[in-house]
Amino acid sequence: MTKTFPSISIPALDDEKGKMAADYIDTLTKPPGSLGRLEELAIELASMTADPFPQVTRPGVIVFAADHGVTAEGVSAFPQEVTGQMVRNFLNGGAAINVFSKQINAHLRIVDIGVASDIDGEGLTRAKVRYGTANFCKENAMSEEEAIKAIEIGYKQGKEMIQKGAKCLILGEMGIGNTTTSSAILAAISGKSVADLVGQGTGISVDTMIHKQQVIEKALHERKPDVSDPIDILSKIGGLEIAGIAGAMLAGANSRIPILVDGFICTTAAVVAKMISSRAADYMIVGHRSMEPGHEAAIQLLGKKPLIDLGLRLGEGSGAAVAFPILHSASLMVREMATFSSAGISNKE
Amino acid sequence: MTKTFPSISIPALDDEKGKMAADYIDTLTKPPGSLGRLEELAIELASMTADPFPQVTRPGVIVFAADHGVTAEGVSAFPQEVTGQMVRNFLNGGAAINVFSKQINAHLRIVDIGVASDIDGEGLTRAKVRYGTANFCKENAMSEEEAIKAIEIGYKQGKEMIQKGAKCLILGEMGIGNTTTSSAILAAISGKSVADLVGQGTGISVDTMIHKQQVIEKALHERKPDVSDPIDILSKIGGLEIAGIAGAMLAGANSRIPILVDGFICTTAAVVAKMISSRAADYMIVGHRSMEPGHEAAIQLLGKKPLIDLGLRLGEGSGAAVAFPILHSASLMVREMATFSSAGISNKE
Repeated sequence: MTKTFPSISIPALDDEKGKMAADYIDTLTKPPGSLGRLEELAIELASMTADPFPQVTRPGVIVFAADHGVTAEGVSAFPQEVTGQMVRNFLNGGAAINVFSKQINAHLRIVDIGVASDIDGEGLTRAKVRYGTANFCKENAMSEEEAIKAIEIGYKQGKEMIQKGAKCLILGEMGIGNTTTSSAILAAISGKSVADLVGQGTGISVDTMIHKQQVIEKALHERKPDVSDPIDILSKIGGLEIAGIAGAMLAGANSRIPILVDGFICTTAAVVAKMISSRAADYMIVGHRSMEPGHEAAIQLLGKKPLIDLGLRLGEGSGAAVAFPILHSASLMVREMATFSSAGISNKE
Repeated sequence: MTKTFPSISIPALDDEKGKMAADYIDTLTKPPGSLGRLEELAIELASMTADPFPQVTRPGVIVFAADHGVTAEGVSAFPQEVTGQMVRNFLNGGAAINVFSKQINAHLRIVDIGVASDIDGEGLTRAKVRYGTANFCKENAMSEEEAIKAIEIGYKQGKEMIQKGAKCLILGEMGIGNTTTSSAILAAISGKSVADLVGQGTGISVDTMIHKQQVIEKALHERKPDVSDPIDILSKIGGLEIAGIAGAMLAGANSRIPILVDGFICTTAAVVAKMISSRAADYMIVGHRSMEPGHEAAIQLLGKKPLIDLGLRLGEGSGAAVAFPILHSASLMVREMATFSSAGISNKE
């Protein structure tokens, strides 16, 4: 019998507060419904936060970095040492997620949850579970204890970010090889064929893509994860950053904090979080539609509709950060607009 | 022979600076192409501004307000006095465009270019060409001199906003009845059927929609605008705020300032600006796809692809303001991200 992650209590959405927001929005100085998705978002945010005037600022961004043993199979366009190099880039403020986090005035935290090398550098949160996962073509990626520990670390990081005042959580990741890991997880959970889920990632050739598909099929055949058990899936074919993100999402949902989900890797982690506690998905909004072919399958498992569709496929949480101002607009609409009566404006004839 | 608006000199796009930006973007610490549309936008902005590191902040928002005589035909969900009431709401900071302009830290200016009533209130730019247009079912909306004057006012307002330091122009409008006017203009220019262009606007019934379509067909039949002549179109079936927006767009293009185009009314004004000086469209980016059915036809006439699609149909420039942070992200990406060599990161194998 596999170990399970302790059940996380997640409150039900507050539909009454959602209804209050909906009624109030119809009194604002605009034709009813004319702000479309922004109105729906404000109502969702009200239900999540149990506040008819929901706030989403400041957002908190947590980037979890980890390595993947499966890179030994030659599935990625970049060598494994890039994970550590990119973590240093995050610490120095030079990556896309730094630029976009600064744009949206977010708290940003970088967590080493399993990079294969030791990283020096100020500002890094050190929470390494192990030096990268094992190559899941040959053995389990990690033990069940390690999978649970990674989720717990993510949960703790999420809670700390919320204690710092974050009103919206954006999770990001860095891990060379993690589209391979995510595709394997998603193939296991969704039952879809690997060929339908796996694309050219961060820029591999068609030959490498076919090889990547074969590697994933081999891993699924060798590991045979129990598709109803998220801990079994994570330990056999998972990634440490994916487990960490799932844990941070559970922390957000537990605290009624809206979670703005990034692309393929994060949405796969969101599906895992939903398997652990199904209500977690109630607190999620998908920020953008990624170019990665498997993303659509993951979005469907969550039952969501992305906010933007700009052909992004970078990861790091970057797409969610770019989408965040739309969530902010929805919040500001309900918090700051005048009503017909307060502005003394004639309503519809 | 009709009068023409004096030819505005608009510089060609600087493709060399665009190429410089494209080459530089490929050295940034991300897989090439992985920021999708943001990369394309940064290249477009570089070509527009002749700067490989383009800036878009602060943006400037100019809202032109005017009334439409055709409201006498009963085509709108709101009474005509709402135009003036909403202008007061703008001056008091309570409308959607106020909230979103504040969110993006924009300069905001409200221009009375033809409201049917006199408006008191601080902060209003008074540039009334006339007290609303005439009912174009019965007579020309305005004289050719008035149409030209409205374009000139818009041009001057655009230039003043640029002199204040605006690096991106967002134009907005307020005018009860202006979807009717825009639909008439667009039907004339595009040759599409009125039924294909006219929807339920800010919330009219199906009966009113059919009546609105008949009103537009009658106006086109009675006025017979010369579809190759933007001044003839504006004077016969135009709107003062639409002429003003077209003028402001010409000012942006003349100064190499990117123009972020809002929804149906603004895109129609953009089509008119393109008729006056075809290069004007080179400086335009369409911010969002509106719910108004005619918007797609207007977008196609410009040859553009909207940034976001959130079911908005409010106007005021609100959709462009909500989309602006995406343009800002594109600019910040190229201005602030580290390169592979500056960050000491291994590039693709």
